[in-house]
Order: sequence, then C-alpha cells, then structure tokens
Amino acid sequence: MVMLWCGSTEVLTELDDVHKTLHSFEEGLKHDHPAITPSMIYAYASLMSGVPFGNGAPNLTVDIPALLELATDRGVPVCGKDFKTGQTLMKTIIAPALKARQLGLHGWFSTNILGNRDGDVLHDPDSFRTKERSKLSVLEYILQPELNDDLYGQYEHQVHIHYYKPRGDNKEGWDNIDIFGWLDYPMQIKVNFLCRDSILAAPLVLDLVLFLDLAQRSGLSGIQEWLSFYFKSPMCAPFLYPEHDLFIQLTKLKNTLRYLRGEEQITHLGLEYYQQR
Amino acid sequence: MVMLWCGSTEVLTELDDVHKTLHSFEEGLKHDHPAITPSMIYAYASLMSGVPFGNGAPNLTVDIPALLELATDRGVPVCGKDFKTGQTLMKTIIAPALKARQLGLHGWFSTNILGNRDGDVLHDPDSFRTKERSKLSVLEYILQPELNDDLYGQYEHQVHIHYYKPRGDNKEGWDNIDIFGWLDYPMQIKVNFLCRDSILAAPLVLDLVLFLDLAQRSGLSGIQEWLSFYFKSPMCAPFLYPEHDLFIQLTKLKNTLRYLRGEEQITHLGLEYYQQR
Amino acid sequence: MVMLWCGSTEVLTELDDVHKTLHSFEEGLKHDHPAITPSMIYAYASLMSGVPFGNGAPNLTVDIPALLELATDRGVPVCGKDFKTGQTLMKTIIAPALKARQLGLHGWFSTNILGNRDGDVLHDPDSFRTKERSKLSVLEYILQPELNDDLYGQYEHQVHIHYYKPRGDNKEGWDNIDIFGWLDYPMQIKVNFLCRDSILAAPLVLDLVLFLDLAQRSGLSGIQEWLSFYFKSPMCAPFLYPEHDLFIQLTKLKNTLRYLRGEEQITHLGLEYYQQR
Amino acid sequence: MVMLWCGSTEVLTELDDVHKTLHSFEEGLKHDHPAITPSMIYAYASLMSGVPFGNGAPNLTVDIPALLELATDRGVPVCGKDFKTGQTLMKTIIAPALKARQLGLHGWFSTNILGNRDGDVLHDPDSFRTKERSKLSVLEYILQPELNDDLYGQYEHQVHIHYYKPRGDNKEGWDNIDIFGWLDYPMQIKVNFLCRDSILAAPLVLDLVLFLDLAQRSGLSGIQEWLSFYFKSPMCAPFLYPEHDLFIQLTKLKNTLRYLRGEEQITHLGLEYYQQR
Repeated sequence: MVMLWCGSTEVLTELDDVHKTLHSFEEGLKHDHPAITPSMIYAYASLMSGVPFGNGAPNLTVDIPALLELATDRGVPVCGKDFKTGQTLMKTIIAPALKARQLGLHGWFSTNILGNRDGDVLHDPDSFRTKERSKLSVLEYILQPELNDDLYGQYEHQVHIHYYKPRGDNKEGWDNIDIFGWLDYPMQIKVNFLCRDSILAAPLVLDLVLFLDLAQRSGLSGIQEWLSFYFKSPMCAPFLYPEHDLFIQLTKLKNTLRYLRGEEQITHLGLEYYQQR
Repeated sequence: MVMLWCGSTEVLTELDDVHKTLHSFEEGLKHDHPAITPSMIYAYASLMSGVPFGNGAPNLTVDIPALLELATDRGVPVCGKDFKTGQTLMKTIIAPALKARQLGLHGWFSTNILGNRDGDVLHDPDSFRTKERSKLSVLEYILQPELNDDLYGQYEHQVHIHYYKPRGDNKEGWDNIDIFGWLDYPMQIKVNFLCRDSILAAPLVLDLVLFLDLAQRSGLSGIQEWLSFYFKSPMCAPFLYPEHDLFIQLTKLKNTLRYLRGEEQITHLGLEYYQQR
Repeated sequence: MVMLWCGSTEVLTELDDVHKTLHSFEEGLKHDHPAITPSMIYAYASLMSGVPFGNGAPNLTVDIPALLELATDRGVPVCGKDFKTGQTLMKTIIAPALKARQLGLHGWFSTNILGNRDGDVLHDPDSFRTKERSKLSVLEYILQPELNDDLYGQYEHQVHIHYYKPRGDNKEGWDNIDIFGWLDYPMQIKVNFLCRDSILAAPLVLDLVLFLDLAQRSGLSGIQEWLSFYFKSPMCAPFLYPEHDLFIQLTKLKNTLRYLRGEEQITHLGLEYYQQR
Repeated sequence: MVMLWCGSTEVLTELDDVHKTLHSFEEGLKHDHPAITPSMIYAYASLMSGVPFGNGAPNLTVDIPALLELATDRGVPVCGKDFKTGQTLMKTIIAPALKARQLGLHGWFSTNILGNRDGDVLHDPDSFRTKERSKLSVLEYILQPELNDDLYGQYEHQVHIHYYKPRGDNKEGWDNIDIFGWLDYPMQIKVNFLCRDSILAAPLVLDLVLFLDLAQRSGLSGIQEWLSFYFKSPMCAPFLYPEHDLFIQLTKLKNTLRYLRGEEQITHLGLEYYQQR
C-alpha cells in the first residue's frame, strides 16, 4: 500500500515550531494546533501505518522535520512536493537547455489559464502564494545566477495563474522568454501549451505508486530524492539543494533503478567505441 | 590551427564510389569528379595538413569513408555535421522531454522563415533536400519508434523552410506539436522562436575551435562523437547511431571533459547522501 | 430552389475562348471541351433551370462571360467565389485595420495545416494554384499599393497550405505579419487560428441560400456583388474591382438589405445628435 | 492651438458632485477639492482659453458635465478618452468581425506586458482600475449581449497588465479568444502583438491636432464623437452609447469629413453599377 496526496493547494503555511520535532507535532495534534494542516494529518497517519507517502501538492505536508523524523524512524519512504505537469514542466525542460548553450536570460513571463476547481482555489491569494513559491524557485536552481552572473544575474521571472472558466478542465500556459546570445543580441521564445492537468498527472501517480512501493521493498526510507523527476519542488536532504533540471532528474531516476538492479551506471562517455578501433 | 566549414548548404550529394576509399577519392580529385564537392576539397586539404576539421553545414564533406580513413591515418580529429542552432535545437530539447514523460506524438509541424542568403540558398530544392534530411532524422533517433510503437509508431513530421525577405538576417521558427497523454487525450504545444542564426552559431564555432584543439592535444583522432552537442547530424562510428538528445549530448560532453582531466564520471546517483545519514 | 457549389478545388483553369460566349460554351459542351470543368456544367444546368447559383470554391465555374450572359438573359442571380472562412477571413479583418491606421506592411507570411480530403486535394500543385490565386489577391485590393506606395509598395505576401494528417477535420492557420509604424519602427502581429472549416462554412451556405432566394424574389439578376461578404474572390462587374474589406462588405450587405426593404441607408454620420442640442 | 493630454493614467476618480456643474467645479477649484485631478485643471484652462482639448488617457478629465458645459458655452470642441493603440485596438478589430459572422464567444483572455513608466504606473491597482474600466467595456458595446443572448450572453472577459521590465519601451499583448460556431463547436484565436505604444500613439496625436483644429474652424463644439476612431472610451452624448467598432468609427470619421467638405455620403450600396447594365 502507498498513499499519494492529490488534494488542492492548501493555504500557505510557514514552518512552525510545532513542525520541528515529532514530539511537538504530536502535542500539536492533540491540541488542534492551527499550523497543522489536513494534509499533514494524513501524512502522519500514513507513516504511522508504515505506508509510503508522496505529496502531489505544493503544501509542506510531509516536508517538515517532525514527519521526516517519523519516516526515518519507521523506515518509510516519502517523496514530494507538487506534481510537475504543465508550465513548470516546460520550464524545467527549456531552462536547462538555455544554460547548456549559455544563452543569457533577461526575463521569463509565464501566465496560465485554467477553469476548474483547481484554478478556483488558486484564485485565492493565500493558496496562490503556496503555488507561486513552488513555481518561482525553479529557474534559480537550474540557472545558478551566483555562478553565471553575466547571463543570469538579473533576469525577471513572473508567474501568473488565472481562473478562466471557459478553459474548463483544460489548462493553457503562455510563456514569453527573453533571452540573449552572443554580443547581447536579444531573442525571444514563446511557448503556448494547451494541455490538461489530470491527463498529465495521472501517469505520474501511477509511476509513483510503483516506485514508492519499490523503494520500500528495496529497504530505502526517508526522502526519495531520485523521484525528483515528478515534482515541482523536489524534497531533498537539508544540506543539499533541490534538483530541478528534468534531464538530470531523469538520469538520477534511471541510474537509481540501475543501481537497485545491480546494473552499471550509465555515463554516456562511450570513448571506448572509438578507441577500440 | 583548426578548420571549421561555415559555408551555405551544398546541393545534395549521395555517397558515391569515389568517396569510399582514400585512393578512389584522390583519383577523383585528379579528374575533377563531379561527386567531389568544394567542401570535401577543403576538408582534404585540412586533414593533409594535420589540421582538425569541423563541418557546420549539412553536406557530407568530411563524413565519407575516404576522409575518415585519412583522419585516422594522420591522427587528426574531425567532427560535424550542421550546427544545431534554431528550430532543430528546440526539437532536440523538447522531444527528449516528451519521451521522458512518455507523452505520445501524433505530429510535429515545423515551419521556418528567414530572409538572408542562407534562406535564399535553401529556397533551391536541391540544397533544401540536404538540409531537410539533416532536420528530419532527429525525432526518429530520439523517440525510437521501434521501441515505443504505441507512442511514436505513427507520427507525422514535416519541416518547411521559406525564404521570406522581411525577416532579414533574423530567423523565426513556428512549431506545432500534437501530443497525446493518458487515455490518448490530445494536447498541443506551440513554439515560436524569434532568433538569429549567426548569434546562435558564433559561440558554437568558438567552442569547437577550442575543443578540436583540445582533442588534438589529447591525442584523440577521427570522429569526435563527444562534440555531438553542437550538431544537427552528429557524426558517429558506422556501427552506432547518432545521439540527438541535447541533454545526453551534454552529459557526454561534460563526462568526456572530466575523463580528459582525469576526474570521476558524474552519474547523478547520489544515494550516498541519504545512506550516510 | 437555389444551387450552391461546395465541392473541392478544381485544377486551375485559365479563361479560354470557349468560355467567352454562351454560343461557344454550348458548342464546347457538345464536344466535351477540356476547358469546361464539371462545376461549369452544374452551373449551366442551374441557370438553364432558372435556379440561382452560388460558388463556394475558387474555380471559375460561373464566373465566365458565357455563364454571366446566360444568368442575365434568364434573370437569374449568381454569386461567388470561394467561401471566406479561416485564414483569409482573418486577413480581410486585419488588413483593413492596418490601412485604416496607416500602418505599413513589410510582409505577411501565412501558413495553414489541415488534415482532411480538402487538404489532400490542395496538396496537388495544380489545385493549390487555383486556391493560391484566390488567397493572394486579397491584400492588394485592400491595401491599394498604387495609392499608398510608402506603406504598401513593397510588402511580401506568402500563403502556404500543408496537408498534415494529425489535424484531421480541423484546420489551423498561423500568420506572421510584419508591420511598421511611425518612423518606420517595425512591429509584429502573430495570429494562430484553430478552427474547423465546415463549422465556419455551414452558416455561410445557409445565409447564401436565403439571400440568393431573396435576390431572385426581388428581381435582381446576374452578379450579386452585395454578397461579397461571404467570398474570398468576390465576383463583380468587369469594370469594377472586387471588394475584400470584410467591413465594407458588411456595410454593403446591410445597406442592400435596407434598400430592398425600402429603409434609409446608414452612413454613421450622426452629427444631428450633437447639432440638435 | 490645440491641447492634447498625454500623461500617465491617473488614479480612478468617480463622478462627484463637484464635477456636475461649472459653478460647483469652479468653487471646487478655489478650495482645492480632492476630486478635481490635475488633468481636469489643464482641461479647464484649455477651454477657458478657447483651445480645443483632447484626452489621450482614461481619466475622466474633460468628460464631466461641468467641463462639457464650459466647452459648449465657449464653442470649443473636445474629444477623448484613452488613445486606442495596442491590444484594445486589436480587440475592436476582431470583435466586430466575430459579430458580423455571428460567431459566439465563450471568453476573451487578454494579458499585456510592458516595461516602461507607463507599465509601472499601471502596476498601481488604483491607476489600473481606471485603465481596466476603459478596456473592459469595449466588448459589451460591440457584441451587444442584450440583443444576442445565445452568442454573447455569457462570455468571460479578462484584461491583465503586467509591468515586466525586460520589455522596456516595447509592449506585448497576448490574447486568447474562445469562440464557438455552428453546433456550438469550440474554436480558438490567439493573437500575439509585439508593438510599441509611442509609435502607435504618435500619429494619433498628430491626426487629432489637425482634426480638432478643423472642428473648431468648421464651427463644431462640444463632444466630437466622429473622432471616436482614436479612443478606447469614446466620449459621446449622454443619451447615446459609445461606438467601439473600429470600422464603424472609420466610416463615421470619413463620412463626417465628406460632410464637412460638402461631399456625398458613402453607403457602399452600389446597386446602380449592376442595374445600369
């Protein structure tokens, strides 16, 4: 058995003292502490039952010291946060390429329209803030402005989400990306993504059920960073930074599967094909 | 010294007997054989002088047995073909992501407008055929329809290039990508890329000069597959297939550089961060 | 009763001697003259039966002197050619606005993808030429380069149609419009129209049935220029030029209906509202 | 001499008692009434000096009973409000066409990015509200939902403006238009307009200077509705509604010029060309 949280985005909750140790969390539970959200209670129940838990929403949920402590204690794998499906998926596809080619970035303007309950919830500014935080950090980790000041030291990044009823259950993203190349010459990329959240998310749920189960059977517990591929805000050890590049996430996923099967890691070096000649 | 071919696309030339051995090629040179194109003569001169040669155009040029034989004999590194800069660059960014997420493909329609001499040359159907071949094969190698028949067994791929004078030295690509997800639900991605070829190509030339020189200093010769990152039709050993996925190409490039410096290969496994705890 | 031709585009037929008089046409009919196309025979039959005839395809059909002579002789109204539904509709919406605001034009690049039999037929170069002629002339009549040389003397206009099977019965147009304003400053408009031909055409058919019937009841015969609103290549008297501006076409349509009902023409002058005060 | 207000958008001011008569306005001026904005003071000075006044911003300015009374008393022509240049211009081009073709509307989503002081000012919610009001009403008057309930009774219209620094003095609009045709079949139009406000506005200023001067020389005074062509919120007599359709505005403009020259009105009827035959 595996538990995956697929509810709508909760109101933004900052890390609170009550989240910091398992003891304080359990005390908080007893006294109905307001910083303990519904999804945290589900996660707690899941872990207490020894059931792997994944979080498809941007809320903190299992990503608090108290519950990570519980996951490690009980030997239960966890992963999250926030399924990566539409516009952020595209962003973690294109941004790594810009960096690979050392194309500079002046700005990235993203707007989204969606017309179902998900959009309605995100119309609430407090819920949106949870989502926005999850969406905005992506570029920073991929582009590493601190290491590439000339190229990425000054870009402007905006993400907007609009509840627009005519779009119904479909979702549409429009991205305008202002890049610059050699001699600072400005160029633009526009991406219009006409998609449907549930269609993009459903297979992620299925994969995660299988992989969380595999993780448990393989004796892994705590944060499963190798499942970052599926998330907008991948959970990782506190001394690491989250990996957002979709292709590094994929390599990580595949090489972890190879490792679990006792296969050799793939590095794509392949010089031997040419040196053998 | 390094030689890089940056001329316009030559008329399509199929592999001919004259290209098959160094001997037949040199005989052909003497008798002005029509299947020996100007760029081949430059490549021959370069290799004979022990100068590494890279090919930024889609013509065969150095990618014929005769000249590969010469490159190996003389210990000279070569690479090519066709700088990957605009629409094909975007294609080798997005297609790997579709495959990573197992999103099916119904069709990919690409159109290009450009207004300089490069566009004018490609207006010629024979030159266009050389370019089209270079542009079309990309998806097939990335998506591997033979292994993913349900998802990629039936897509339609079209590439059009139009000489449109008002665009001048700029270039613009419009891509319409028809994908399908869970339950065959159709979705669409549109990409509009407003760019400039020379701006995107110039840094590739600089990188290749440095890397071909490094290859020669490092004792590498013949095809430099690790430089596939820069090309639309990467040259590779005859028993291999060309790698088109930009991110695998990048991993290959970086791990080769690590290898040349005697550093450890990066696999992104990183389980040790979690197991040490 | 009314007859409306809705068949696929015929191969391009130039005006031939056999089309020039009713007599030569009828002689040609008897001898199976190759320049007499199937749609012309339908039109002839329609007019001979006193039935109003409209042409929804770009073929000449009823737009030849022989059949116009017959229409006038028999007092039958006719109209055509080529239903204005998708990209050309958009063009005759936007171009009048550019001219109204005196925005100059460097170029207009139009590409179309469609996946049904209509697209398949237009894949045939000869049929495409019929269509292209119908689509290309639109801008020239609206922008009047001969009167606005600075603004419209040099623009490049391209129209492409591609049979792209994944689009199915839907149609998609992408237009890139390069305009310039004050001080020759370049600006761009891009239009992406995701539509469906039959959905856009069906109501035109219904309107035209009603209006051709009205024309006949009102004693009008020959070319019904006031129905230009519905066509990409509106038929008009030989000494006039076709009106392509959708909004002038609409005014013409409405004022003709007002005229037929004995109502006053609308000029939108309306100064009386202010002078009465 | 002519005065044209081209300042940034003022904070939204509702019609106040102080605006209702010239007397109350002049009293308010003396006591520095907070509902009297800077642009109103300029307009007052202009009219008192007998100088025609036009308003290029969405603020009320001259569009208050007090100043209209003054304009009529002194025989001075006035016009406004809010230059129609970018996205709203496109809206009043496309919406009339949708209505002409009786294509229904589910929704119209408009977003704008601009990076100069104008965008910065509109980032202020109070200034934006003035602008939004000016931009939102456009569709309602063109589509007349009260007369076309099936087609236009339920559409959703959103307009967003974002200050996005990388766009600099340029402006970019993205419109997604959800229409429906025959049998309620949904279709979409997307418009991406890359433009520059000042370039689009400057010629309007020049035209208005000439036409306001002409109006004064021709003895016209008060609201010049025939100049609606230039404005997002055209001023009109209190018992009329503003005309937003660009092409009706153009007809009005041209026929007024014809009227002032003593020429015949153009109705585009033109049946005489066919009846003379």
